Amino acid sequence: MIRLGGLEAGGTKFVCAVGNGATVQQRVSFPTRKPEETLAEALAFFKHHPVQALGIACFGPVDLNPSSPTFGRITATPKPHWQNTDIVQPFAQALGIPVHFDTDVNGAALGEWAWGAGRGLNDVLYLTVGTGIGGGALSGGRPIHGLIHPEMGHIRVPRDPSDCFAGCCPFHGDCLEGLASGAAIHQRWGRAGEKLEDSHPAWRLEARYLALGLVNLVMTLSPQRVILGGGVMRRPPLYTLIRQEFKMLVNDYLQANQLKDLESYIVAPALGENAGVVGAFVLAQQALEAATG
Amino acid sequence: MIRLGGLEAGGTKFVCAVGNGATVQQRVSFPTRKPEETLAEALAFFKHHPVQALGIACFGPVDLNPSSPTFGRITATPKPHWQNTDIVQPFAQALGIPVHFDTDVNGAALGEWAWGAGRGLNDVLYLTVGTGIGGGALSGGRPIHGLIHPEMGHIRVPRDPSDCFAGCCPFHGDCLEGLASGAAIHQRWGRAGEKLEDSHPAWRLEARYLALGLVNLVMTLSPQRVILGGGVMRRPPLYTLIRQEFKMLVNDYLQANQLKDLESYIVAPALGENAGVVGAFVLAQQALEAATG
Repeated sequence: MIRLGGLEAGGTKFVCAVGNGATVQQRVSFPTRKPEETLAEALAFFKHHPVQALGIACFGPVDLNPSSPTFGRITATPKPHWQNTDIVQPFAQALGIPVHFDTDVNGAALGEWAWGAGRGLNDVLYLTVGTGIGGGALSGGRPIHGLIHPEMGHIRVPRDPSDCFAGCCPFHGDCLEGLASGAAIHQRWGRAGEKLEDSHPAWRLEARYLALGLVNLVMTLSPQRVILGGGVMRRPPLYTLIRQEFKMLVNDYLQANQLKDLESYIVAPALGENAGVVGAFVLAQQALEAATG
Repeated sequence: MIRLGGLEAGGTKFVCAVGNGATVQQRVSFPTRKPEETLAEALAFFKHHPVQALGIACFGPVDLNPSSPTFGRITATPKPHWQNTDIVQPFAQALGIPVHFDTDVNGAALGEWAWGAGRGLNDVLYLTVGTGIGGGALSGGRPIHGLIHPEMGHIRVPRDPSDCFAGCCPFHGDCLEGLASGAAIHQRWGRAGEKLEDSHPAWRLEARYLALGLVNLVMTLSPQRVILGGGVMRRPPLYTLIRQEFKMLVNDYLQANQLKDLESYIVAPALGENAGVVGAFVLAQQALEAATG
Protein backbone atom coordinates (compact mmCIF):
# COMPACT_ATOMS: atom_id res chain seq x y z
CA MET A 1 0.00 0.00 0.00
CA ILE A 2 1.20 3.49 -0.85
CA ARG A 3 2.31 5.43 2.22
CA LEU A 4 0.77 8.88 2.17
CA GLY A 5 1.65 11.76 4.48
CA GLY A 6 -0.91 14.02 6.07
CA LEU A 7 -0.15 17.26 7.87
CA GLU A 8 -2.92 19.10 9.68
CA ALA A 9 -1.37 22.48 10.33
CA GLY A 10 -3.56 24.18 12.90
CA GLY A 11 -3.10 27.45 14.71
CA THR A 12 -2.86 25.61 18.03
CA LYS A 13 -1.29 22.29 17.11
CA PHE A 14 0.27 20.45 14.21
CA VAL A 15 -0.69 16.82 13.53
CA CYS A 16 1.63 14.72 11.35
CA ALA A 17 0.44 11.33 10.15
CA VAL A 18 1.27 8.50 7.79
CA GLY A 19 -1.41 6.28 6.31
CA ASN A 20 -3.75 5.71 3.43
CA GLY A 21 -7.52 6.04 3.09
CA ALA A 22 -8.99 6.23 6.57
CA THR A 23 -6.14 4.22 8.08
CA VAL A 24 -3.73 6.20 10.21
CA GLN A 25 -0.54 4.20 10.78
CA GLN A 26 1.58 6.77 12.59
CA ARG A 27 0.43 9.98 14.17
CA VAL A 28 2.10 12.63 16.31
CA SER A 29 0.95 16.06 17.37
CA PHE A 30 2.78 19.00 18.91
CA PRO A 31 1.97 22.63 19.72
CA THR A 32 2.25 25.30 17.03
CA ARG A 33 5.17 27.53 17.99
CA LYS A 34 7.21 29.78 15.69
CA PRO A 35 7.23 28.72 12.03
CA GLU A 36 10.89 27.69 11.79
CA GLU A 37 10.73 25.39 14.85
CA THR A 38 7.32 23.96 14.03
CA LEU A 39 8.03 23.31 10.36
CA ALA A 40 11.37 21.72 11.27
CA GLU A 41 9.63 19.39 13.70
CA ALA A 42 7.08 18.36 11.07
CA LEU A 43 9.82 17.89 8.49
CA ALA A 44 11.80 15.70 10.89
CA PHE A 45 8.74 13.48 11.30
CA PHE A 46 8.35 12.96 7.56
CA LYS A 47 12.08 12.37 7.10
CA HIS A 48 11.88 9.67 9.75
CA HIS A 49 8.66 8.23 8.26
CA PRO A 50 9.10 8.40 4.48
CA VAL A 51 5.97 8.91 2.37
CA GLN A 52 5.34 9.09 -1.37
CA ALA A 53 3.31 12.29 -1.32
CA LEU A 54 2.20 14.82 1.27
CA GLY A 55 -1.12 16.59 1.79
CA ILE A 56 -1.34 19.68 3.99
CA ALA A 57 -4.57 21.01 5.51
CA CYS A 58 -3.58 24.40 6.84
CA PHE A 59 -5.02 27.15 9.02
CA GLY A 60 -5.62 30.31 7.07
CA PRO A 61 -5.83 32.56 5.34
CA VAL A 62 -3.72 30.77 2.74
CA ASP A 63 -3.06 31.48 -0.93
CA LEU A 64 -4.56 28.60 -2.92
CA ASN A 65 -4.14 30.15 -6.36
CA PRO A 66 -1.47 28.16 -8.27
CA SER A 67 -0.79 31.12 -10.56
CA SER A 68 -0.19 33.56 -7.69
CA PRO A 69 3.38 34.51 -6.69
CA THR A 70 2.46 33.82 -3.06
CA PHE A 71 0.87 30.40 -3.76
CA GLY A 72 1.38 28.03 -0.86
CA ARG A 73 1.75 30.70 1.77
CA ILE A 74 -0.16 31.58 4.89
CA THR A 75 -1.02 35.23 4.18
CA ALA A 76 -2.60 37.85 6.49
CA THR A 77 -3.07 35.74 9.62
CA PRO A 78 -3.31 37.55 12.94
CA LYS A 79 -1.15 34.75 14.41
CA PRO A 80 2.24 36.26 15.37
CA HIS A 81 5.26 35.23 13.23
CA TRP A 82 3.19 33.23 10.72
CA GLN A 83 2.38 35.97 8.18
CA ASN A 84 3.75 35.10 4.72
CA THR A 85 5.01 31.70 5.81
CA ASP A 86 5.43 29.31 2.90
CA ILE A 87 3.89 26.04 4.04
CA VAL A 88 4.35 24.06 0.81
CA GLN A 89 7.86 24.64 -0.55
CA PRO A 90 9.82 23.67 2.60
CA PHE A 91 8.27 20.19 2.42
CA ALA A 92 8.35 19.81 -1.36
CA GLN A 93 12.03 20.78 -1.51
CA ALA A 94 13.33 18.89 1.51
CA LEU A 95 11.35 15.71 0.83
CA GLY A 96 11.40 15.76 -2.98
CA ILE A 97 7.84 14.44 -3.19
CA PRO A 98 4.56 15.84 -4.61
CA VAL A 99 2.77 18.13 -2.14
CA HIS A 100 -0.81 19.43 -2.35
CA PHE A 101 -2.52 21.70 0.13
CA ASP A 102 -5.84 23.29 1.04
CA THR A 103 -7.46 24.99 4.01
CA ASP A 104 -8.01 23.13 7.27
CA VAL A 105 -11.80 23.13 6.84
CA ASN A 106 -11.59 21.94 3.24
CA GLY A 107 -9.24 19.23 4.47
CA ALA A 108 -11.77 18.08 7.06
CA ALA A 109 -14.53 18.29 4.42
CA LEU A 110 -12.45 16.13 2.05
CA GLY A 111 -11.73 13.58 4.77
CA GLU A 112 -15.38 13.24 5.76
CA TRP A 113 -16.39 13.13 2.08
CA ALA A 114 -13.92 10.39 1.18
CA TRP A 115 -14.14 8.20 4.26
CA GLY A 116 -16.59 9.61 6.77
CA ALA A 117 -20.09 11.04 7.08
CA GLY A 118 -20.13 12.38 3.53
CA ARG A 119 -19.07 9.17 1.82
CA GLY A 120 -20.76 8.53 -1.52
CA LEU A 121 -22.01 12.10 -1.89
CA ASN A 122 -20.64 14.78 -4.20
CA ASP A 123 -21.90 17.93 -2.50
CA VAL A 124 -21.05 18.17 1.15
CA LEU A 125 -20.83 21.02 3.63
CA TYR A 126 -18.55 20.71 6.66
CA LEU A 127 -18.98 23.39 9.31
CA THR A 128 -16.84 23.52 12.43
CA VAL A 129 -18.04 25.41 15.49
CA GLY A 130 -15.21 25.91 17.93
CA THR A 131 -13.42 29.02 19.16
CA GLY A 132 -14.38 30.38 15.73
CA ILE A 133 -16.74 29.15 13.01
CA GLY A 134 -15.49 27.96 9.64
CA GLY A 135 -16.84 25.98 6.73
CA GLY A 136 -15.58 23.98 3.79
CA ALA A 137 -17.77 22.80 0.93
CA LEU A 138 -17.41 20.36 -1.94
CA SER A 139 -19.36 20.88 -5.14
CA GLY A 140 -19.26 17.93 -7.53
CA GLY A 141 -16.53 16.39 -5.36
CA ARG A 142 -14.26 19.46 -5.61
CA PRO A 143 -13.59 21.97 -2.83
CA ILE A 144 -15.05 25.40 -3.60
CA HIS A 145 -12.15 27.85 -3.74
CA GLY A 146 -13.05 30.91 -5.77
CA LEU A 147 -11.41 34.24 -5.14
CA ILE A 148 -10.22 33.36 -1.65
CA HIS A 149 -11.76 31.04 0.92
CA PRO A 150 -13.79 33.19 3.23
CA GLU A 151 -14.92 30.12 5.13
CA MET A 152 -18.48 31.12 5.86
CA GLY A 153 -18.15 32.01 9.54
CA HIS A 154 -18.73 35.72 9.00
CA ILE A 155 -22.15 35.63 7.32
CA ARG A 156 -24.80 37.91 8.83
CA VAL A 157 -27.93 36.45 10.40
CA PRO A 158 -30.91 38.10 12.12
CA ARG A 159 -30.38 38.63 15.85
CA ASP A 160 -32.67 36.91 18.26
CA PRO A 161 -34.86 39.60 19.93
CA SER A 162 -34.03 38.15 23.36
CA ASP A 163 -30.29 38.52 22.84
CA CYS A 164 -28.61 41.75 23.87
CA PHE A 165 -25.01 40.52 23.54
CA ALA A 166 -23.18 42.79 21.08
CA GLY A 167 -21.21 39.97 19.45
CA CYS A 168 -17.49 39.33 19.69
CA CYS A 169 -16.21 39.53 16.11
CA PRO A 170 -13.53 42.22 15.86
CA PHE A 171 -14.53 42.87 12.22
CA HIS A 172 -18.32 42.63 12.29
CA GLY A 173 -19.55 42.43 15.87
CA ASP A 174 -22.62 40.30 15.47
CA CYS A 175 -21.91 38.11 12.42
CA LEU A 176 -22.50 34.37 12.92
CA GLU A 177 -19.05 33.85 14.42
CA GLY A 178 -19.55 36.91 16.62
CA LEU A 179 -22.84 35.51 17.95
CA ALA A 180 -22.41 31.73 18.00
CA SER A 181 -18.73 30.74 18.23
CA GLY A 182 -17.30 29.21 21.38
CA ALA A 183 -15.76 32.60 22.15
CA ALA A 184 -19.19 34.24 21.84
CA ILE A 185 -20.77 31.71 24.21
CA HIS A 186 -18.02 32.35 26.74
CA GLN A 187 -18.36 36.13 26.55
CA ARG A 188 -22.18 36.21 26.54
CA TRP A 189 -22.69 33.93 29.53
CA GLY A 190 -19.45 34.55 31.44
CA ARG A 191 -18.54 30.85 31.34
CA ALA A 192 -17.16 28.51 28.70
CA GLY A 193 -19.69 26.31 26.94
CA GLU A 194 -18.32 23.19 28.62
CA LYS A 195 -19.35 24.67 31.98
CA LEU A 196 -22.98 25.32 31.00
CA GLU A 197 -25.49 22.59 31.86
CA ASP A 198 -27.68 21.07 29.12
CA SER A 199 -30.74 22.93 30.43
CA HIS A 200 -29.07 26.35 30.18
CA PRO A 201 -30.86 28.79 27.81
CA ALA A 202 -27.52 29.24 26.03
CA TRP A 203 -28.14 26.09 24.00
CA ARG A 204 -31.51 27.03 22.56
CA LEU A 205 -30.06 30.39 21.47
CA GLU A 206 -26.96 28.69 20.09
CA ALA A 207 -29.12 26.27 18.10
CA ARG A 208 -31.18 29.17 16.77
CA TYR A 209 -28.13 31.03 15.46
CA LEU A 210 -26.46 27.94 14.02
CA ALA A 211 -29.72 26.94 12.30
CA LEU A 212 -30.01 30.44 10.80
CA GLY A 213 -26.45 30.10 9.52
CA LEU A 214 -27.14 26.62 8.15
CA VAL A 215 -30.31 27.78 6.38
CA ASN A 216 -28.28 30.43 4.58
CA LEU A 217 -25.53 28.01 3.65
CA VAL A 218 -27.98 25.32 2.50
CA MET A 219 -30.02 27.83 0.45
CA THR A 220 -26.76 28.85 -1.25
CA LEU A 221 -24.74 25.65 -1.63
CA SER A 222 -27.50 23.03 -1.60
CA PRO A 223 -25.33 20.30 -0.04
CA GLN A 224 -26.52 16.71 0.04
CA ARG A 225 -25.47 16.52 3.68
CA VAL A 226 -24.29 18.91 6.39
CA ILE A 227 -21.57 17.75 8.77
CA LEU A 228 -21.30 19.80 11.94
CA GLY A 229 -18.13 19.42 13.96
CA GLY A 230 -15.90 21.37 16.35
CA GLY A 231 -15.64 21.69 20.11
CA VAL A 232 -19.00 23.44 20.66
CA MET A 233 -20.78 20.55 18.90
CA ARG A 234 -19.47 18.00 21.42
CA ARG A 235 -22.81 18.40 23.22
CA PRO A 236 -25.13 15.88 21.52
CA PRO A 237 -28.49 17.54 22.45
CA LEU A 238 -27.39 20.53 20.37
CA TYR A 239 -27.87 18.55 17.12
CA THR A 240 -31.51 17.90 18.00
CA LEU A 241 -32.15 21.56 18.83
CA ILE A 242 -30.49 22.69 15.59
CA ARG A 243 -32.59 20.29 13.51
CA GLN A 244 -35.78 21.61 15.16
CA GLU A 245 -34.88 25.23 14.47
CA PHE A 246 -33.73 24.42 10.94
CA LYS A 247 -37.05 22.74 10.14
CA MET A 248 -39.01 25.74 11.42
CA LEU A 249 -36.87 28.19 9.46
CA VAL A 250 -37.02 26.31 6.14
CA ASN A 251 -40.79 25.96 6.58
CA ASP A 252 -41.19 23.40 3.77
CA TYR A 253 -39.72 25.73 1.17
CA LEU A 254 -37.03 23.24 0.11
CA GLN A 255 -38.59 20.12 -1.40
CA ALA A 256 -36.21 17.16 -1.29
CA ASN A 257 -36.60 13.76 0.31
CA GLN A 258 -33.29 14.17 2.11
CA LEU A 259 -34.69 17.15 4.01
CA LYS A 260 -37.55 15.09 5.41
CA ASP A 261 -35.05 13.16 7.51
CA LEU A 262 -32.94 15.79 9.21
CA GLU A 263 -31.25 13.20 11.44
CA SER A 264 -29.51 11.96 8.29
CA TYR A 265 -29.10 15.43 6.81
CA ILE A 266 -27.47 17.34 9.68
CA VAL A 267 -24.95 14.96 11.21
CA ALA A 268 -21.84 14.72 13.36
CA PRO A 269 -18.45 13.96 11.78
CA ALA A 270 -17.59 10.26 11.54
CA LEU A 271 -13.79 10.53 11.62
CA GLY A 272 -13.46 12.42 14.89
CA GLU A 273 -10.05 13.94 15.45
CA ASN A 274 -8.66 12.22 12.35
CA ALA A 275 -10.81 14.12 9.78
CA GLY A 276 -8.02 16.61 9.13
CA VAL A 277 -5.20 14.14 8.51
CA VAL A 278 -7.44 11.77 6.55
CA GLY A 279 -8.43 14.74 4.38
CA ALA A 280 -4.72 15.50 4.03
CA PHE A 281 -4.21 11.94 2.76
CA VAL A 282 -6.83 12.72 0.06
CA LEU A 283 -4.79 15.79 -0.90
CA ALA A 284 -1.60 13.68 -0.94
CA GLN A 285 -3.29 11.13 -3.22
CA GLN A 286 -4.31 13.96 -5.57
CA ALA A 287 -0.76 15.31 -5.57
CA LEU A 288 0.54 11.85 -6.46
CA GLU A 289 -1.99 11.46 -9.29
CA ALA A 290 -1.17 14.91 -10.65
CA ALA A 291 2.56 14.14 -10.56
CA THR A 292 2.28 10.76 -12.25
CA GLY A 293 -0.30 11.98 -14.80
CA MET B 1 -20.62 27.34 -37.94
CA ILE B 2 -22.62 24.90 -35.83
CA ARG B 3 -26.19 26.08 -35.31
CA LEU B 4 -27.11 25.78 -31.64
CA GLY B 5 -30.59 26.16 -30.20
CA GLY B 6 -31.31 28.07 -27.01
CA LEU B 7 -34.59 28.01 -25.13
CA GLU B 8 -35.11 30.32 -22.18
CA ALA B 9 -38.20 28.89 -20.56
CA GLY B 10 -39.46 31.53 -18.14
CA GLY B 11 -42.60 31.62 -16.07
CA THR B 12 -43.80 34.69 -17.98
CA LYS B 13 -42.37 34.20 -21.45
CA PHE B 14 -40.46 31.69 -23.54
CA VAL B 15 -37.56 32.85 -25.72
CA CYS B 16 -36.41 30.60 -28.57
CA ALA B 17 -33.18 31.38 -30.37
CA VAL B 18 -30.66 30.01 -32.83
CA GLY B 19 -27.02 31.02 -32.79
CA ASN B 20 -23.58 30.22 -31.47
CA GLY B 21 -21.38 31.87 -28.88
CA ALA B 22 -22.79 35.31 -28.16
CA THR B 23 -24.29 35.60 -31.65
CA VAL B 24 -28.07 35.31 -31.81
CA GLN B 25 -29.19 34.71 -35.40
CA GLN B 26 -32.91 34.12 -34.88
CA ARG B 27 -34.94 34.95 -31.82
CA VAL B 28 -38.64 34.85 -31.00
CA SER B 29 -40.48 35.20 -27.71
CA PHE B 30 -44.05 34.48 -26.70
CA PRO B 31 -46.03 34.37 -23.45
CA THR B 32 -45.95 31.27 -21.25
CA ARG B 33 -49.43 29.72 -21.42
CA LYS B 34 -50.39 26.09 -20.69
CA PRO B 35 -47.57 23.57 -21.16
CA GLU B 36 -48.98 21.73 -24.20
CA GLU B 37 -49.53 24.96 -26.18
CA THR B 38 -46.30 26.61 -25.13
CA LEU B 39 -44.08 23.58 -25.68
CA ALA B 40 -45.74 23.01 -29.09
CA GLU B 41 -44.99 26.60 -30.09
CA ALA B 42 -41.33 26.26 -29.05
CA LEU B 43 -41.07 22.92 -30.83
CA ALA B 44 -42.53 24.42 -34.02
CA PHE B 45 -39.82 27.11 -33.91
CA PHE B 46 -37.00 24.57 -33.69
CA LYS B 47 -38.55 22.40 -36.41
CA HIS B 48 -38.63 25.45 -38.64
CA HIS B 49 -35.08 26.47 -37.64
CA PRO B 50 -33.09 23.25 -37.39
CA VAL B 51 -30.25 23.13 -34.87
CA GLN B 52 -27.66 20.49 -33.95
CA ALA B 53 -28.25 20.59 -30.22
CA LEU B 54 -30.56 22.39 -27.80
CA GLY B 55 -29.92 24.01 -24.44
CA ILE B 56 -32.80 24.85 -22.12
CA ALA B 57 -32.60 27.33 -19.24
CA CYS B 58 -35.80 26.75 -17.35
CA PHE B 59 -37.80 28.33 -14.52
CA GLY B 60 -37.94 26.10 -11.49
CA PRO B 61 -37.96 24.16 -9.43
CA VAL B 62 -36.60 21.58 -11.86
CA ASP B 63 -35.11 18.13 -11.33
CA LEU B 64 -31.47 18.30 -12.46
CA ASN B 65 -30.41 14.90 -11.15
CA PRO B 66 -29.72 12.62 -14.15
CA SER B 67 -30.27 9.51 -12.04
CA SER B 68 -33.70 10.63 -10.80
CA PRO B 69 -36.89 9.21 -12.35
CA THR B 70 -38.22 12.76 -12.69
CA PHE B 71 -35.04 14.15 -14.31
CA GLY B 72 -35.85 16.90 -16.79
CA ARG B 73 -39.12 17.91 -15.18
CA ILE B 74 -40.40 21.08 -13.64
CA THR B 75 -41.42 19.82 -10.19
CA ALA B 76 -43.35 21.60 -7.40
CA THR B 77 -43.87 24.98 -9.07
CA PRO B 78 -46.78 27.11 -7.85
CA LYS B 79 -47.43 28.00 -11.52
CA PRO B 80 -50.77 26.42 -12.53
CA HIS B 81 -50.65 23.48 -14.98
CA TRP B 82 -46.84 23.28 -15.01
CA GLN B 83 -46.27 20.87 -12.09
CA ASN B 84 -44.45 17.71 -13.26
CA THR B 85 -44.02 18.99 -16.81
CA ASP B 86 -41.19 17.26 -18.64
CA ILE B 87 -39.26 20.02 -20.36
CA VAL B 88 -36.45 17.90 -21.86
CA GLN B 89 -37.95 14.76 -23.44
CA PRO B 90 -40.50 16.48 -25.73
CA PHE B 91 -37.63 18.30 -27.48
CA ALA B 92 -35.15 15.41 -27.42
CA GLN B 93 -37.69 13.00 -28.92
CA ALA B 94 -39.29 15.27 -31.51
CA LEU B 95 -36.04 16.82 -32.70
CA GLY B 96 -33.72 13.82 -32.31
CA ILE B 97 -30.83 16.01 -31.10
CA PRO B 98 -28.83 16.23 -27.87
CA VAL B 99 -30.55 18.37 -25.23
CA HIS B 100 -29.07 19.71 -22.00
CA PHE B 101 -30.84 21.82 -19.43
CA ASP B 102 -30.33 23.80 -16.24
CA THR B 103 -32.15 26.43 -14.20
CA ASP B 104 -32.84 29.88 -15.64
CA VAL B 105 -30.40 31.58 -13.26
CA ASN B 106 -27.65 29.03 -13.94
CA GLY B 107 -28.32 29.62 -17.66
CA ALA B 108 -27.83 33.37 -17.25
CA ALA B 109 -24.73 32.72 -15.11
CA LEU B 110 -23.31 30.44 -17.84
CA GLY B 111 -24.03 33.02 -20.56
CA GLU B 112 -22.37 35.85 -18.65
CA TRP B 113 -19.46 33.55 -17.75
CA ALA B 114 -18.85 32.40 -21.32
CA TRP B 115 -19.45 35.64 -23.22
CA GLY B 116 -20.36 38.46 -20.85
CA ALA B 117 -19.30 40.12 -17.61
CA GLY B 118 -17.80 36.93 -16.17
CA ARG B 119 -15.64 36.05 -19.15
CA GLY B 120 -12.24 34.58 -18.28
CA LEU B 121 -13.20 33.81 -14.68
CA ASN B 122 -14.00 30.40 -13.20
CA ASP B 123 -16.01 31.38 -10.15
CA VAL B 124 -18.89 33.71 -10.85
CA LEU B 125 -22.08 34.60 -9.02
CA TYR B 126 -25.10 35.85 -10.97
CA LEU B 127 -27.93 37.28 -8.88
CA THR B 128 -31.15 38.52 -10.42
CA VAL B 129 -33.36 40.94 -8.51
CA GLY B 130 -36.78 41.15 -10.12
CA THR B 131 -40.23 40.13 -8.91
CA GLY B 132 -38.28 37.53 -6.92
CA ILE B 133 -34.59 37.09 -6.14
CA GLY B 134 -32.57 34.19 -7.51
CA GLY B 135 -28.95 33.28 -7.92
CA GLY B 136 -26.79 30.95 -9.96
CA ALA B 137 -23.13 30.28 -9.25
CA LEU B 138 -20.26 28.64 -11.06
CA SER B 139 -17.43 27.01 -9.14
CA GLY B 140 -14.44 26.04 -11.25
CA GLY B 141 -16.52 26.77 -14.36
CA ARG B 142 -19.32 24.37 -13.35
CA PRO B 143 -22.77 25.37 -12.08
CA ILE B 144 -23.30 24.45 -8.44
CA HIS B 145 -26.19 21.99 -8.31
CA GLY B 146 -26.06 19.90 -5.16
CA LEU B 147 -29.19 18.43 -3.65
CA ILE B 148 -31.55 20.81 -5.40
CA HIS B 149 -30.99 24.40 -6.52
CA PRO B 150 -32.41 26.60 -3.83
CA GLU B 151 -31.28 29.67 -5.73
CA MET B 152 -30.22 31.82 -2.81
CA GLY B 153 -33.19 34.21 -2.69
CA HIS B 154 -34.49 32.90 0.62
CA ILE B 155 -31.45 33.45 2.82
CA ARG B 156 -32.06 35.31 6.09
CA VAL B 157 -30.45 38.69 6.73
CA PRO B 158 -30.69 41.08 9.68
CA ARG B 159 -33.57 43.54 9.39
CA ASP B 160 -32.84 47.22 9.22
CA PRO B 161 -34.03 48.81 12.49
CA SER B 162 -35.87 51.52 10.52
CA ASP B 163 -37.90 48.97 8.55
CA CYS B 164 -41.24 47.82 9.92
CA PHE B 165 -42.45 46.04 6.76
CA ALA B 166 -43.20 42.42 7.66
CA GLY B 167 -41.80 41.01 4.41
CA CYS B 168 -43.76 39.41 1.59
CA CYS B 169 -42.37 35.87 1.30
CA PRO B 170 -45.21 33.36 1.78
CA PHE B 171 -42.75 30.85 3.25
CA HIS B 172 -40.48 33.00 5.41
CA GLY B 173 -41.88 36.53 5.66
CA ASP B 174 -38.70 38.55 5.93
CA CYS B 175 -36.07 36.51 4.09
CA LEU B 176 -34.02 38.43 1.49
CA GLU B 177 -36.65 37.91 -1.20
CA GLY B 178 -39.36 38.90 1.27
CA LEU B 179 -37.55 42.16 2.09
CA ALA B 180 -35.81 43.19 -1.14
CA SER B 181 -37.54 41.71 -4.20
CA GLY B 182 -39.49 43.89 -6.61
CA ALA B 183 -42.66 42.57 -4.99
CA ALA B 184 -41.38 43.64 -1.55
CA ILE B 185 -40.57 47.15 -2.79
CA HIS B 186 -44.07 47.45 -4.24
CA GLN B 187 -45.78 46.25 -1.06
CA ARG B 188 -43.61 48.25 1.34
CA TRP B 189 -43.95 51.60 -0.42
CA GLY B 190 -47.32 51.14 -2.13
CA ARG B 191 -45.81 51.78 -5.55
CA ALA B 192 -43.73 49.74 -7.98
CA GLY B 193 -39.99 50.45 -7.94
CA GLU B 194 -40.14 52.06 -11.40
CA LYS B 195 -42.42 54.73 -9.94
CA LEU B 196 -40.07 55.69 -7.08
CA GLU B 197 -37.69 58.60 -7.73
CA ASP B 198 -33.93 58.12 -7.31
CA SER B 199 -33.99 60.20 -4.10
CA HIS B 200 -36.62 58.00 -2.44
CA PRO B 201 -35.43 56.31 0.80
CA ALA B 202 -36.50 53.00 -0.73
CA TRP B 203 -33.20 52.77 -2.60
CA ARG B 204 -30.87 53.14 0.37
CA LEU B 205 -32.82 50.43 2.20
CA GLU B 206 -32.84 48.25 -0.92
CA ALA B 207 -29.07 48.64 -1.25
CA ARG B 208 -28.61 47.76 2.40
CA TYR B 209 -30.56 44.52 2.10
CA LEU B 210 -28.98 43.49 -1.18
CA ALA B 211 -25.50 44.22 0.22
CA LEU B 212 -26.28 42.06 3.28
CA GLY B 213 -27.35 39.28 0.94
CA LEU B 214 -24.24 39.69 -1.20
CA VAL B 215 -21.95 39.65 1.83
CA ASN B 216 -23.43 36.29 2.84
CA LEU B 217 -23.13 34.88 -0.66
CA VAL B 218 -19.57 36.18 -1.12
CA MET B 219 -18.48 34.84 2.30
CA THR B 220 -19.83 31.44 1.26
CA LEU B 221 -19.06 31.09 -2.46
CA SER B 222 -16.10 33.45 -2.81
CA PRO B 223 -16.84 34.38 -6.42
CA GLN B 224 -14.26 36.24 -8.49
CA ARG B 225 -17.01 38.59 -9.66
CA VAL B 226 -20.65 39.29 -8.79
CA ILE B 227 -23.08 40.07 -11.62
CA LEU B 228 -26.28 41.73 -10.51
CA GLY B 229 -29.17 41.73 -12.98
CA GLY B 230 -32.96 41.76 -13.07
CA GLY B 231 -35.61 44.45 -13.36
CA VAL B 232 -34.96 46.11 -9.99
CA MET B 233 -31.30 46.63 -10.96
CA ARG B 234 -32.23 48.72 -14.01
CA ARG B 235 -31.66 51.78 -11.81
CA PRO B 236 -27.91 52.50 -12.16
CA PRO B 237 -27.45 54.50 -8.91
CA LEU B 238 -28.40 51.32 -7.04
CA TYR B 239 -25.05 49.70 -7.95
CA THR B 240 -23.15 52.55 -6.31
CA LEU B 241 -25.26 52.36 -3.15
CA ILE B 242 -24.82 48.58 -2.96
CA ARG B 243 -21.03 48.85 -3.32
CA GLN B 244 -20.92 51.43 -0.49
CA GLU B 245 -22.95 49.23 1.85
CA PHE B 246 -20.99 46.11 0.87
CA LYS B 247 -17.69 47.82 1.69
CA MET B 248 -18.96 48.90 5.12
CA LEU B 249 -20.30 45.44 5.89
CA VAL B 250 -17.15 43.53 4.85
CA ASN B 251 -15.07 46.01 6.87
CA ASP B 252 -11.74 44.85 5.40
CA TYR B 253 -12.21 41.28 6.57
CA LEU B 254 -11.78 39.82 3.08
CA GLN B 255 -8.28 40.49 1.75
CA ALA B 256 -8.12 40.26 -2.02
CA ASN B 257 -7.06 42.78 -4.62
CA GLN B 258 -10.31 42.30 -6.51
CA LEU B 259 -12.26 43.57 -3.51
CA LYS B 260 -10.37 46.85 -3.49
CA ASP B 261 -12.07 47.78 -6.75
CA LEU B 262 -15.75 47.13 -6.17
CA GLU B 263 -16.72 48.79 -9.47
CA SER B 264 -15.11 45.82 -11.19
CA TYR B 265 -16.28 43.31 -8.59
CA ILE B 266 -20.02 44.06 -8.38
CA VAL B 267 -21.15 44.68 -11.96
CA ALA B 268 -24.14 44.77 -14.29
CA PRO B 269 -24.71 41.96 -16.81
CA ALA B 270 -23.08 42.50 -20.21
CA LEU B 271 -25.46 40.45 -22.35
CA GLY B 272 -28.69 42.19 -21.40
CA GLU B 273 -31.82 40.30 -22.38
CA ASN B 274 -29.75 37.71 -24.27
CA ALA B 275 -27.96 36.25 -21.20
CA GLY B 276 -30.51 33.44 -20.92
CA VAL B 277 -30.41 32.23 -24.53
CA VAL B 278 -26.63 32.68 -24.79
CA GLY B 279 -26.34 30.56 -21.64
CA ALA B 280 -28.65 28.05 -23.29
CA PHE B 281 -26.24 27.92 -26.25
CA VAL B 282 -23.49 26.98 -23.77
CA LEU B 283 -25.71 24.16 -22.53
CA ALA B 284 -26.39 23.10 -26.15
CA GLN B 285 -22.65 23.04 -26.87
CA GLN B 286 -22.13 20.86 -23.78
CA ALA B 287 -24.89 18.51 -24.93
CA LEU B 288 -23.23 18.22 -28.32
CA GLU B 289 -19.83 17.51 -26.80
CA ALA B 290 -21.31 14.89 -24.46
CA ALA B 291 -23.11 13.21 -27.37
CA THR B 292 -20.09 13.15 -29.68
CA GLY B 293 -17.71 12.15 -26.91
